[in-house]
Amino acid sequence: MKRIISILVLCLAVAGAAQAQELANFAFWGNRKPIVSPEIQGDSVTFRLKADYATVVKLSGSWMPNPWGGTIDMVRNQDLVWEVKIPLPEPEIYTYNFVVDGVAVNDPQNVLVQRDGTRYLPMLLVPGERSQNYGEATKHGTVSHPWYDSKILGMSRRLTVYTPYGYEANPKKKYPVLYLLHGAGGDEEAWTSMGRAAQILDNLIEKGLAEPMIVVMPNGNPGQAAARTLNIPEKPYDWRDPSMRDNYVKSLCTEIVPFIEKNFRAVPKPASRAIAGLSMGGGHTISASILYPELFDYICPLSAAGSATPEQIAALKKAGVKLYFLACGNTDFLFKGAEEMHAKLNEQGLEHEYFVSDGGHVWSNWRLYLNTFAQKLFK
Amino acid sequence: MKRIISILVLCLAVAGAAQAQELANFAFWGNRKPIVSPEIQGDSVTFRLKADYATVVKLSGSWMPNPWGGTIDMVRNQDLVWEVKIPLPEPEIYTYNFVVDGVAVNDPQNVLVQRDGTRYLPMLLVPGERSQNYGEATKHGTVSHPWYDSKILGMSRRLTVYTPYGYEANPKKKYPVLYLLHGAGGDEEAWTSMGRAAQILDNLIEKGLAEPMIVVMPNGNPGQAAARTLNIPEKPYDWRDPSMRDNYVKSLCTEIVPFIEKNFRAVPKPASRAIAGLSMGGGHTISASILYPELFDYICPLSAAGSATPEQIAALKKAGVKLYFLACGNTDFLFKGAEEMHAKLNEQGLEHEYFVSDGGHVWSNWRLYLNTFAQKLFK
Repeated sequence: MKRIISILVLCLAVAGAAQAQELANFAFWGNRKPIVSPEIQGDSVTFRLKADYATVVKLSGSWMPNPWGGTIDMVRNQDLVWEVKIPLPEPEIYTYNFVVDGVAVNDPQNVLVQRDGTRYLPMLLVPGERSQNYGEATKHGTVSHPWYDSKILGMSRRLTVYTPYGYEANPKKKYPVLYLLHGAGGDEEAWTSMGRAAQILDNLIEKGLAEPMIVVMPNGNPGQAAARTLNIPEKPYDWRDPSMRDNYVKSLCTEIVPFIEKNFRAVPKPASRAIAGLSMGGGHTISASILYPELFDYICPLSAAGSATPEQIAALKKAGVKLYFLACGNTDFLFKGAEEMHAKLNEQGLEHEYFVSDGGHVWSNWRLYLNTFAQKLFK
Repeated sequence: MKRIISILVLCLAVAGAAQAQELANFAFWGNRKPIVSPEIQGDSVTFRLKADYATVVKLSGSWMPNPWGGTIDMVRNQDLVWEVKIPLPEPEIYTYNFVVDGVAVNDPQNVLVQRDGTRYLPMLLVPGERSQNYGEATKHGTVSHPWYDSKILGMSRRLTVYTPYGYEANPKKKYPVLYLLHGAGGDEEAWTSMGRAAQILDNLIEKGLAEPMIVVMPNGNPGQAAARTLNIPEKPYDWRDPSMRDNYVKSLCTEIVPFIEKNFRAVPKPASRAIAGLSMGGGHTISASILYPELFDYICPLSAAGSATPEQIAALKKAGVKLYFLACGNTDFLFKGAEEMHAKLNEQGLEHEYFVSDGGHVWSNWRLYLNTFAQKLFK
C-alpha cells in the first residue's frame, strides 16, 4: 500500500507540469497570496479579481438599486488585484459579476454559481434571519431527475424531484407532494438553482417547521424536453393556438401527477397535493386550479401571470380548498393583477391568505414565499 | 382563459422594462443580429464575443497542442463582434474560453458548460464516430443525488447515482452496479459533468451495446461531504496518516455498496459488481481490489495513480476476476506505472485487457475508456 501512496504523492507533485485537467485545480504550491472573493468580514464584503491588463473593472450585483444591476468601480490594491469593499447587503442570496473592459466576467474564486436561464452567475449568500434556511441543513433530501413520457406533448421530459431526508430509510412511509412551477425563461432546474428549494425544504423539515414532503419541479416550457444545458432540440410550440394552449397544464395534471404517484411513495389524495408557481408558473397554477378544481387542496400562485373569472373561483370554492396562498411583491409589475385576484377571491368568499412583500418580480421574493407557504402545507 | 393569456402577453411585453430576473433571458425584441457561438459549419467552427471596449481578445481551447491550452487571436468582424474561425478539431468534447484583456471569460452564448473542479468551462461537442455516444440519447436514465451516512468518515455524504431507462417501469427487475470513481480535484459530479457518464450509458444501452446497469459515482475526497458547489465545511483529512489512509475505500466497500444494495434494486453479487476509476480513483480502484478481493468481479483502473504487489495480484487472481481492464494514454505522466502494472499482471498470470490510447491524462481518454469497458461489463 505504501507504494500506492508514493505514486499518489508523485502524481500530485508533477501535476503542475502535466496536462492534468482535474489536477489543474490544485494550487497548493507557490508562495503567491491566494485571492479570496467574495470575502465577508463583519458588516462588509470584499470582491477581488486578478486582471493585469484590464483598463476598467467594475462590480455589478443584484442588490444594487438599479433594475439592471448598476455597477461600482473597482481599484487595484497593493497586490495589483482589482478590489472593492462594500457594506454587506441585507441578509439574502444575491448574484453578481465583474465587468472587465465592458465584458461580464464571473468570479473565478467563487465556485458557488446559480444558473438563471442561459446565464451562470456567481452567488453571494449574506447570512441572517431571512436567509437562515437558504444554506445547507445537516440532513439532506435526495434530488433526482427522472423522465416521464408525455403523450400530450409528444416527448420524454425531464423532471426534478426532491424526496425528504428519511425517504430511503422508511420504505413504507407515504408522503404528500408539492408541485412547484417555474416562470418564463426558467426550466426544471430553476427552483433548485435560483430558488434553493432543496435547502429551504431540508431546513424547514429539520427544524420541524414543515411536514416531510416530496417536491416535484417539472419543465414548464411545453416545447422543451429538458433544460437547454442538455442540448435536446426543441419542438416549435404555439401557445396562442387554442388547441395547444393548456397542453402543459394538462400534461402536469394527467401525466406528471400519475407518474409521481406511481413511482414515488406519494399519498394520492387532494389533501396531500399542493401546487405553487411563480410568474408564468403562477399562471399555470391558476390554470390547473380552474381545469382540475378537485386535484389540489393547496394552491399558491406567486407573482402570478394569470387570473380567473368569478365562475371559476366559485367552482374552485365548491371543490374545496385547504389553503389558497396568493403572494406578490408591492413593486412587482404584476402587482395590480394580484390586487384584482385578491378582490375577486374576497367577492366569491374564497378564504385565502394574501401575502404582500416588499420588492418586485425577483427570486428573493420567491424564496421568501416558498419558505413561508411550505410551513402551512399538509397540516 | 382568454384573460389569463392577455395578462401573460402583457407580462412578456413589459418584461424588458421590469426587473424580471427570469424574463431577462428573453431576447425576442429588437432588430439586433443575434450572436451565435460556437457555430459549427462544415469542417470549421466559429467563435464570437461582443466586447466593445476590449483591446485584445483571444480564444483558448482544450484541443490546442499547448498543455495549458494556448491561445488564438480573435478579430473584430464587420458587426464589431470579435470572431475567429478555425478548422473543426477531431470529433470529441472540448472546453474553451475567451481571454479578454488577459482575463478568462466564458462564452455568454453557450449554455453548455462543464464544471472541472472549481472552474466552469463552455463546452464544444464536435460530432463524429468517436463522440457519437456523448450527446443525448432518445431514452434517458435517471440521475439522482442520495446521501449516505458514513460512520467511517463521520458525516452524511452525497452520491451521484444513475439508474438506466426502464428502471421505474420495471419495478421487479434487479440490475448490476458499476462504481465509477473520479480523480484528484474532482467530486461526485465529475463523471456526469466532464465524463458524460449518463449520456454514454444512455447511448450504449439504447443501442444494445451495454447491459442496463446502475452507475454509482461517490465523492472520493474523504474530508468532503459533497461537491464544493454545496458549500459544506470540509473536515481536515490527513491521508498520510496510516490509520486514515484507506478510510474512503473502506467507506466505499462497506458503507456505499450496502447502501446501494439496500436502496436500489441491485444484484448483490460479485458478478454484478464492477469498479472503475481514473487517476486517484484508479488508485482507489486498485486499493479496493486489494482490500476486498472478493467484492468486485470487474476491475478497471484508468490512468491509475496506484499499483499492487505480486502477492496482492495473486490474491486477487485467486478470488476470481471476470474482467481486469487496465487503461492509460501513451503520453500520460502515469504511463510508466501502467506499463509496470501490465507487466506485473502478466507475471502473475492474471488475465487482463491492456488498453493503451493516444494522449495524456485527460477527460477525452476517460470518456473513451468508459465508452469502451462499459460494453464489456456483466456479460
